Amino acid sequence: MKRNFFITFEGGEGTGKSTQARLLAGFLEKQGISCELTREPGGSAGAEEIRELVVKGAVRRWDVMTEALLMFAARRDHLVNTVWPALAQGKTVICDRFADSTMAYQGFGYADEGLGRQTVESLYQTVVGDFKPDLTVILDMPVEHGVERALRRDATVNRYEKMGLDFHRNLRQAFLDIAAKEPNRCAVVDATGTIDGIHAQVAALVQQRLLKA
Amino acid sequence: MKRNFFITFEGGEGTGKSTQARLLAGFLEKQGISCELTREPGGSAGAEEIRELVVKGAVRRWDVMTEALLMFAARRDHLVNTVWPALAQGKTVICDRFADSTMAYQGFGYADEGLGRQTVESLYQTVVGDFKPDLTVILDMPVEHGVERALRRDATVNRYEKMGLDFHRNLRQAFLDIAAKEPNRCAVVDATGTIDGIHAQVAALVQQRLLKA
Repeated sequence: MKRNFFITFEGGEGTGKSTQARLLAGFLEKQGISCELTREPGGSAGAEEIRELVVKGAVRRWDVMTEALLMFAARRDHLVNTVWPALAQGKTVICDRFADSTMAYQGFGYADEGLGRQTVESLYQTVVGDFKPDLTVILDMPVEHGVERALRRDATVNRYEKMGLDFHRNLRQAFLDIAAKEPNRCAVVDATGTIDGIHAQVAALVQQRLLKA
Repeated sequence: MKRNFFITFEGGEGTGKSTQARLLAGFLEKQGISCELTREPGGSAGAEEIRELVVKGAVRRWDVMTEALLMFAARRDHLVNTVWPALAQGKTVICDRFADSTMAYQGFGYADEGLGRQTVESLYQTVVGDFKPDLTVILDMPVEHGVERALRRDATVNRYEKMGLDFHRNLRQAFLDIAAKEPNRCAVVDATGTIDGIHAQVAALVQQRLLKA
């Protein structure tokens, strides 16, 4: 039986990904499962430097392809220096955002200007290869709700939070499409409830799909 | 007849690329051909920021794939914001390094750890598409000669100049292989002569291949 896993949290702005990732790590640690909690873009020294270039500045600072390349550069650095070494040491890695965010944001968020599925998949294959998350939890809620929460939370608003509601609606639909396309890897969780209620759903998912598998 | 061109200079460290690019721009301007002189990595505000991440720091700061992705991200930003707009305005663009450097350095410089031809070509197709230089001048000289010159010139030595001689020998061979594979686009010029003598060869090449074509 496989003992350690790569679990990712995905979803739009303000859906509670980092909170739920942290709660899941605590839940698994209590069961004696050693966890590495990390995030994208970032999660390694080099990737955090690339992150600075991507999340700050004017909304249309980079064209969509440049942005996707920076995301994949950060991802590669993160995989090589953080994720793959932690998995090799037997840890379970829990990551706040991963490649599905690139598919949703750069693939579909910008609508007609987006890169689309094939280009993002081709970059994934070149950069990451066959490696994939064992489980991806997609936190879903109405767009207005999440973006409002994100804007209320942050003193400084990042580039993506500044995008219009249409962008965020495209994102939400893209995440749901990803989940429908890969139901064995992905699970959609309603993120409009309480933090504890959502955590209970996530914990149950991990139990059923990974720990009891 | 096509009136403006995209011309790139390629070659190892210390082969005189930036000097020859500048001289060629002066030569063409005297003939009334408006030129934009630029460089990679860099050549646009965003790409210069990415350049900082790539050329500074420890020799093995990035794994080879991450490095290639950063180079292509910088290239895309440079194309979108500098090269393509200048060409659309009817200027001739002269660029100190372009994609052949990525093929030589990240594809073959690191020998067995390099990405190889197919991966770099696949990234090129995804990021740049069918756009290519009209002429690529490859400045060639014995490795010891060029690296020594680069080290003597710079107060601060960049990451690539710190690599060993084997790396630079792989580079030189890779550039010669590129030229052999695409003889219509590329021309190899012996860069061991005087600056004026090399410039005369470059100017003659541009006359024959582009201006008289």
